[in-house]
Amino acid sequence: MNAPTSSLPDGTSRSPGRGRPRDATRDTALRTAAMEVLADVGYRALTMDAVAARARAGKATIYRRWESKLDLVIDTCNELVQRNIPEPDLGSVPADLGEFLRAFAAFLTGPAGKAAQALVGELPHERELADAFRESFLLPQRNVLRRIVERGVERGEISPQAPMDTVVELAGAALLHRLMLTGEPLDDRFVDRLLQDALLPLLRRDG
Amino acid sequence: MNAPTSSLPDGTSRSPGRGRPRDATRDTALRTAAMEVLADVGYRALTMDAVAARARAGKATIYRRWESKLDLVIDTCNELVQRNIPEPDLGSVPADLGEFLRAFAAFLTGPAGKAAQALVGELPHERELADAFRESFLLPQRNVLRRIVERGVERGEISPQAPMDTVVELAGAALLHRLMLTGEPLDDRFVDRLLQDALLPLLRRDG
Repeated sequence: MNAPTSSLPDGTSRSPGRGRPRDATRDTALRTAAMEVLADVGYRALTMDAVAARARAGKATIYRRWESKLDLVIDTCNELVQRNIPEPDLGSVPADLGEFLRAFAAFLTGPAGKAAQALVGELPHERELADAFRESFLLPQRNVLRRIVERGVERGEISPQAPMDTVVELAGAALLHRLMLTGEPLDDRFVDRLLQDALLPLLRRDG
Repeated sequence: MNAPTSSLPDGTSRSPGRGRPRDATRDTALRTAAMEVLADVGYRALTMDAVAARARAGKATIYRRWESKLDLVIDTCNELVQRNIPEPDLGSVPADLGEFLRAFAAFLTGPAGKAAQALVGELPHERELADAFRESFLLPQRNVLRRIVERGVERGEISPQAPMDTVVELAGAALLHRLMLTGEPLDDRFVDRLLQDALLPLLRRDG
């Protein structure tokens, strides 16, 4: 097990397991440790002990907050997505899609993407995990994309007959496919090509 | 460990580990066992022992043919793809794309898809496995799609300025994203929608 490589976000150091009241900074440090352990060893091999060791916390501290590793991983996933998936509203579909997809690509390129990848192989075997992963990770991303396109329809920028569902699905698929399967770069250049070659032309069709 | 649930493809039964010459039927049975174990327990937990038990073979039989689990898994992957990914040549891009994508979706929906999914979480940790997975699983699929579109360009059916690379990438991404992440159906209806809403309109653009 590796020792933790970073101090707590607020820069203080704390001794673990003293039964102090829960605080948000501590929760964030524990979730960060959970994400790192997940990325390193995968869901199946993740233990509450390993997360505690990585966060220099007592196991009891973790169990006071999350009742199981499923609970911890789902909460970590939820919180990461909420903190990292922006919803731009810049007044045009190309600007909003570009902003969102660049941010999502950057998010996936970081440690969260490794953690997400570590979960994917487990989804067929872990029904609750699969449901939670879809609800907390895939759905918010898809909903932001959908709202971006719907605002374009309201402004008269996009035809209501454009294949909105397909475009929303393909945008997420393209990024996650590179992250998890091909290993090709998930950079601004890729996002721009995806927009110019595929997503924007499809949205400009009249159905 | 589960007992094998099917007899050998040729219907004979054989006692394991007698040092007989390698034969193709036996190799196929061993690869099928490897694919099933991989789908059940994942790459990390797969052992040559488990594959041997599933195939009712001796461990020595397996080691005579493959020198490591990496070697066994890669060979299994190669052989599955070669047997199951067709290259239609029906004279039109819509017909060829439809035929290929329906066959690829059916292949992914079966046990091979579960095995592929079990590998994905390991790709960041296993460099050789990642390289082999990309070469034996992703590249052949992408090459078939590319040749289908290139034949369309040669026939004058598709403009040489169409965004071929993007279309080829999105076709694979759309199917694999459903298989591995969203769990939504990978059926003919989905393939048809993908073709009509996205792939064919993009190929009909003039760049």
